[in-house]
Amino acid sequence: MHAQEMIRSHPQVQGRTNDALIRCIEECYDCAQICTSCADACLGEEMVQQLRQCIRLNLDCADICMVTGTMATRRTGSNEELLHRMIETCAMACRLCAEECERHAQHHEHCRVCAEACRRCEEACRSAMSGMGSRH
Amino acid sequence: MHAQEMIRSHPQVQGRTNDALIRCIEECYDCAQICTSCADACLGEEMVQQLRQCIRLNLDCADICMVTGTMATRRTGSNEELLHRMIETCAMACRLCAEECERHAQHHEHCRVCAEACRRCEEACRSAMSGMGSRH
Amino acid sequence: MHAQEMIRSHPQVQGRTNDALIRCIEECYDCAQICTSCADACLGEEMVQQLRQCIRLNLDCADICMVTGTMATRRTGSNEELLHRMIETCAMACRLCAEECERHAQHHEHCRVCAEACRRCEEACRSAMSGMGSRH
Amino acid sequence: MHAQEMIRSHPQVQGRTNDALIRCIEECYDCAQICTSCADACLGEEMVQQLRQCIRLNLDCADICMVTGTMATRRTGSNEELLHRMIETCAMACRLCAEECERHAQHHEHCRVCAEACRRCEEACRSAMSGMGSRH
Repeated sequence: MHAQEMIRSHPQVQGRTNDALIRCIEECYDCAQICTSCADACLGEEMVQQLRQCIRLNLDCADICMVTGTMATRRTGSNEELLHRMIETCAMACRLCAEECERHAQHHEHCRVCAEACRRCEEACRSAMSGMGSRH
Repeated sequence: MHAQEMIRSHPQVQGRTNDALIRCIEECYDCAQICTSCADACLGEEMVQQLRQCIRLNLDCADICMVTGTMATRRTGSNEELLHRMIETCAMACRLCAEECERHAQHHEHCRVCAEACRRCEEACRSAMSGMGSRH
Repeated sequence: MHAQEMIRSHPQVQGRTNDALIRCIEECYDCAQICTSCADACLGEEMVQQLRQCIRLNLDCADICMVTGTMATRRTGSNEELLHRMIETCAMACRLCAEECERHAQHHEHCRVCAEACRRCEEACRSAMSGMGSRH
Repeated sequence: MHAQEMIRSHPQVQGRTNDALIRCIEECYDCAQICTSCADACLGEEMVQQLRQCIRLNLDCADICMVTGTMATRRTGSNEELLHRMIETCAMACRLCAEECERHAQHHEHCRVCAEACRRCEEACRSAMSGMGSRH
């Protein structure tokens, strides 16, 4: 992805990028695609009835990652308090989805890959939050 | 909107709808459309430079309302803890956007209507949360 | 919804709203919520395996309606050619989803309501296109 | 991104991935992030009034890329005709956004990077379509 190249050229950023936040953006977009794909693969499995909860958490996580990545991309004006809260919500979505996907990881490769992506995104969210200051 | 008619027919809901949650869904979709419209109208104003912060908060609020409305629509499986957190985040987004729009409400009709929608959606989010039980 | 009230107050619109386009916006937001709800209800049905194609078309239609409603809301600048193409794509998504939901309408109330919403949205898309002039 | 790894593990795909479509998915997600970033950077520029049309096309392109990437990720069931139409619409969105960003590329680095991403995504959409057969 090109998040760093873009945000570095923002008039208010002027080259001083927050690398933890940029990694968070990239993991959010990646995780959104992967969770969309896992929900769809689970729906195609013969045992779809046992994967309903997984599909539900996949879809919720995909939506939340998408909006978190979008919000975290914006640098004009300021909305730090809300962004912090959204990244925190995203970390929770990733953790819950990872926990469910891990239950199916042995039987479904897509759940294994998805669980790993959710853990990476959860961790990137936590790093981004710690870089935003303790006040938020 | 038809949120109630749809959710009432869900196999796990069986007619027992949560009216506060349904109102929250409808206000979220309405607020998403209105915030998208307000961001766009602010961008078209001659004084766009003074409306940057408003556009930023409008866009963030539109994205968050959209995903909150989508998540709250889903009834298969369970993701109550995350949904509660997301609705709480949405209430914050609506409050921040309303506060900013209220500053411009005298000069811009779209900001006046948008502030009112954000306040309605904030209130609907709070009602939906109180109906979800104190544990979350 | 408040689409008309908002768009009427846009600096470039100045009260001259296109009513067919506004109805299209409102049907798109409504149809997005309904298709999200139908996908979720189908996933919760015992016979979920026979509803896979319906879920797929519901999810695609929900996504397309959402972005069509969002794009059609914007009035700053001009992007008529693309908007026309997007509304045309949305009409197709609604028609395909309606055809599939109609097959399940006798057994599932959510499919019956969803098929009706898709037909309404398809028709609103066609009216909006005819109001945009033959050049596009 | 991990689109290939995920789609390869889909029960209906069974390792036979369409590489042109996977590249299209990845470019769509990348372009969505970049267009969101360019709209936001344009909004932060001193000369925002001259960048209104650019912001409009950026936002429309971001929304369309997002939904195209999401739809193209799904492999359960079949929706080829609609997917083809959506990818075609996306190629148009990318072309229009690229043409506008190219006008500002000399003055704004974010427009230069965004124009390049839109051209890459447009080309990836065209390759994906040609791999889907001439009937659609």
